[in-house]
Amino acid sequence: MIYPDVQSWKITSNFPLTRVGTTDFKLPFKIRRPDGLHVLIPEINVFVDLPPHLKGSHMSRNIEVIHSVRNSQEEFGSLEEICERISTEMLKRHEYAECAEVTMRADYFLDRKNPGGKMNTEQYGLIAEAVSKWEGKGRIKTTKVIGVEVTGLTACPCGMETTRAIYLNTPPAVSPRPSITHNQRNISRVCIETQGDQEIEANELIEIVEKAMSSPSFGILKRKDEAAIIWKAHNSPKFVEDVVRDILKEIVKNYPELDDESVVTVSSKSFESIHKHNAFAEAIMKMRELRKIYSQNRREES
Amino acid sequence: MIYPDVQSWKITSNFPLTRVGTTDFKLPFKIRRPDGLHVLIPEINVFVDLPPHLKGSHMSRNIEVIHSVRNSQEEFGSLEEICERISTEMLKRHEYAECAEVTMRADYFLDRKNPGGKMNTEQYGLIAEAVSKWEGKGRIKTTKVIGVEVTGLTACPCGMETTRAIYLNTPPAVSPRPSITHNQRNISRVCIETQGDQEIEANELIEIVEKAMSSPSFGILKRKDEAAIIWKAHNSPKFVEDVVRDILKEIVKNYPELDDESVVTVSSKSFESIHKHNAFAEAIMKMRELRKIYSQNRREES
Amino acid sequence: MIYPDVQSWKITSNFPLTRVGTTDFKLPFKIRRPDGLHVLIPEINVFVDLPPHLKGSHMSRNIEVIHSVRNSQEEFGSLEEICERISTEMLKRHEYAECAEVTMRADYFLDRKNPGGKMNTEQYGLIAEAVSKWEGKGRIKTTKVIGVEVTGLTACPCGMETTRAIYLNTPPAVSPRPSITHNQRNISRVCIETQGDQEIEANELIEIVEKAMSSPSFGILKRKDEAAIIWKAHNSPKFVEDVVRDILKEIVKNYPELDDESVVTVSSKSFESIHKHNAFAEAIMKMRELRKIYSQNRREES
Amino acid sequence: MIYPDVQSWKITSNFPLTRVGTTDFKLPFKIRRPDGLHVLIPEINVFVDLPPHLKGSHMSRNIEVIHSVRNSQEEFGSLEEICERISTEMLKRHEYAECAEVTMRADYFLDRKNPGGKMNTEQYGLIAEAVSKWEGKGRIKTTKVIGVEVTGLTACPCGMETTRAIYLNTPPAVSPRPSITHNQRNISRVCIETQGDQEIEANELIEIVEKAMSSPSFGILKRKDEAAIIWKAHNSPKFVEDVVRDILKEIVKNYPELDDESVVTVSSKSFESIHKHNAFAEAIMKMRELRKIYSQNRREES
Repeated sequence: MIYPDVQSWKITSNFPLTRVGTTDFKLPFKIRRPDGLHVLIPEINVFVDLPPHLKGSHMSRNIEVIHSVRNSQEEFGSLEEICERISTEMLKRHEYAECAEVTMRADYFLDRKNPGGKMNTEQYGLIAEAVSKWEGKGRIKTTKVIGVEVTGLTACPCGMETTRAIYLNTPPAVSPRPSITHNQRNISRVCIETQGDQEIEANELIEIVEKAMSSPSFGILKRKDEAAIIWKAHNSPKFVEDVVRDILKEIVKNYPELDDESVVTVSSKSFESIHKHNAFAEAIMKMRELRKIYSQNRREES
Repeated sequence: MIYPDVQSWKITSNFPLTRVGTTDFKLPFKIRRPDGLHVLIPEINVFVDLPPHLKGSHMSRNIEVIHSVRNSQEEFGSLEEICERISTEMLKRHEYAECAEVTMRADYFLDRKNPGGKMNTEQYGLIAEAVSKWEGKGRIKTTKVIGVEVTGLTACPCGMETTRAIYLNTPPAVSPRPSITHNQRNISRVCIETQGDQEIEANELIEIVEKAMSSPSFGILKRKDEAAIIWKAHNSPKFVEDVVRDILKEIVKNYPELDDESVVTVSSKSFESIHKHNAFAEAIMKMRELRKIYSQNRREES
Repeated sequence: MIYPDVQSWKITSNFPLTRVGTTDFKLPFKIRRPDGLHVLIPEINVFVDLPPHLKGSHMSRNIEVIHSVRNSQEEFGSLEEICERISTEMLKRHEYAECAEVTMRADYFLDRKNPGGKMNTEQYGLIAEAVSKWEGKGRIKTTKVIGVEVTGLTACPCGMETTRAIYLNTPPAVSPRPSITHNQRNISRVCIETQGDQEIEANELIEIVEKAMSSPSFGILKRKDEAAIIWKAHNSPKFVEDVVRDILKEIVKNYPELDDESVVTVSSKSFESIHKHNAFAEAIMKMRELRKIYSQNRREES
Repeated sequence: MIYPDVQSWKITSNFPLTRVGTTDFKLPFKIRRPDGLHVLIPEINVFVDLPPHLKGSHMSRNIEVIHSVRNSQEEFGSLEEICERISTEMLKRHEYAECAEVTMRADYFLDRKNPGGKMNTEQYGLIAEAVSKWEGKGRIKTTKVIGVEVTGLTACPCGMETTRAIYLNTPPAVSPRPSITHNQRNISRVCIETQGDQEIEANELIEIVEKAMSSPSFGILKRKDEAAIIWKAHNSPKFVEDVVRDILKEIVKNYPELDDESVVTVSSKSFESIHKHNAFAEAIMKMRELRKIYSQNRREES
């Protein structure tokens, strides 16, 4: 029996669609990382574009593709590898599509020593995307994005200096010792676009972000550890602007092989203790621009 | 034409149901408060119990009741008054029910002077509930809950003393000046059950909660104000446990008319800056217990 | 006393930032609409860009600007008017910025007659954005976005035909009567960019979206109304793709005055009853493209 | 060096606290199930009560306990086993506490054949709780809760009969064939309290819930499968009330060994396609009551 192919019915509103697909789907994947095997449970969105004449995308193929990629091998190397596998497969299965797009976000856990040397398993976020297009001659070109999300701590430099000036009556030069200020939970995020075979190691990105904050945060902090984190954070007060810029600088320094065209998106959000709203900073720039600015900065410094 | 009354069909699984109703419904209401007219947009849940023999509750009546109460008068006195009006009406309209239940939560805004005297409109939350039951002789008895949700700031007393001891090498007695510590956004909540005509003024509850924190938070803080908030918070460091207890104490002192049977629920959650998880404390007690403990405490103090 | 201006401190990571500001802030505004006065409680995000040499944006100005715009007049004409007022003011107050950006989202309620003629107050969403830039000669150019979010109902055309073919054994031509299919809650969204004085009426957009679905949904539906909605939805089965395209067509037909450069973004998400994931379609196109495709379609039809 | 023990400082608001602890913490655990090894990433809340004289709970112990239980063995048997291990350990580590409480919720995935026999990995939720108390003689008594959350599909029986009567003009007796109606995504949940060694198998509970809905939902449904699900759902129309009651009946039938005192909580929420709000039903009852009602029902039937 042949079932009616309603998706191919003639329609009158012949507009092409930018993306049609399946969102908010979850499925566990095994990822082999330097520190062992991780199970990630990403939230998955998959799309293809739809040409004007086609009434509907064949959506059941989307979940079929996700399952088939998952079943094709026991373990994967990274979340962005899974995205790429799915987006290229999506493009092949939806023969009418010119573009396929996959985005994922998953909780991710890494072992971290707290200031007292005690091991904690800390929660992070991994982000990955892949966009695949036909290049001609049956070749597919895929652009990937690898991203991380890190929760840490910012202490406000403005609050520290103003408090020092008003309540301690000592200018910064006389009193280098950190003064009281407001501090708060901060979530910062980096996403880097890569072409072809370029690889970015998520764990390295997480370290870059964590170092750009006033301090990382930990699950277990005994009294002495807690004081160490407070001391560290107050010796490195940071605006969200500072966090974003310090991440940008490290990306320029650490990824010389990244393509000039790669778009880098860095954001930092502080859940301000003294406000009910949040403070936010974001930079979206190509590597070319970042490198140019960094060179200028270094010339000016020297 | 008479439509089939499927809700009254015979069923075989004759279990009574605790609550059947409508959730996640939103509708704006006008509330007249001492400081003027407020428009609240509560999220509304309404339920009745269902006797064993009835297949279904007549759910369309729920939204009809909400609309009819809303249309019955231009303005209301409080969110809990609306809850009570709806729950008594629900009980009458669902003639098979023995109990009706209404819960609401709405954003609420109050004008507040910041430390520099500048007026801010600050966001709070209002919570209200009503449970109505037949008392016999066609009389309905309604128990209400009035609650508030307040966002502010806690500074950690433990972090302050440990940092002082380790990095400043001065015991508390020698150095009463506040030392650096971690501080963070905190959301605290109070819900108080009332019987009959007892009225609790939400704005007073909000003030009680705000004073129990290390400091309230504000939308607009110029430099000097920011320093004042930081100074205030560090001169009043608080655990979530302290916040809950200080709220409990004020409730005992401020509401002598509250029924001994009234259940009081107080909670405080700190979005810890030094951790990725939250710290939480909660007390659920009857006024009778609270009063007894408070008297003992006062005797021990004197 | 002059307080330290930490925001102007010299920094070494001289990267410009795309946006720096304040997010997740809420404040009620009064809006005068054709059907009366509405109170909206938008979630507000405001940003400016930050030049490379400046350490920090003066964030307290953001909330000051929002409050001052709100206090400047009793009522506003629309959410996008408020966005524009705030974004132009942000640009003036942050003298170092070249661009200011404001985004808002608010619940919105409209009276709607259900199939039985009974009045319901239905919940929608309003979206507004404004981006302001210096144009030279001290003139500011602002681009606005006006958007709506509508919850309704889609019935699946594919499920209907396949069920008909398999279980009823009748081809569509013989049996035009609607057959059973899966249907579900759908949330569709339109955002339209406007330049200068162009005005888009949100209520009209909401009607366009509601008509593009299989049926609108209502709070109160008595039995006969419920059947009418079911009948209507099953006589107008729609994919998310259909919903997006039918909205696009109506936008072309209804807004001949819209600038060719205006970007139109239309999306539709169905919370599929037969799946745990959602179906999604989106089109992002300029009015020029939409008009061109629409003309072609009409030529082909005739 | 001995650090100040601020948690033990003398306080004046000597109220006991119901629960003090750590919320919104995430950590992956390995669970060995009949169908293989699962990695669960639960959201974890842990609490102890706090006696009146103690200023603060030693919160760092909470995460230490969670880590130590996790590191104590490679794999666990169930989520509620982990809860029990943590809650008994919490009680021992917080020597001042009389009660410890642990709650967890995790995504959970099971392989399921769709109507066409194709294997899908479907998403569910697992819920677990444990409450531990000192019983005297140094013995700890722990009460556990095991729960599941299942997403499926309900088709409305009322909408079906009313549509049939109005638009098809045929009474049910003449036309047993399913008629069109509204259907929608439904999330139903069961939590069962157990004492001592009683074990409830989560996979069995999931099956009970799934069978009580109009139909389960699946990730992959080819056309024929989609029609089969639609046909199945329309041949088994269900109110949320029906879903809850049919689950209750199966629990009575399937768990004769459950203690009479065990509290059973069953709820069902339909994300109504024809409304913007949700329909909800819930029953909270002890096994004793459920068994009594079930016996009565059977006597009446025979």
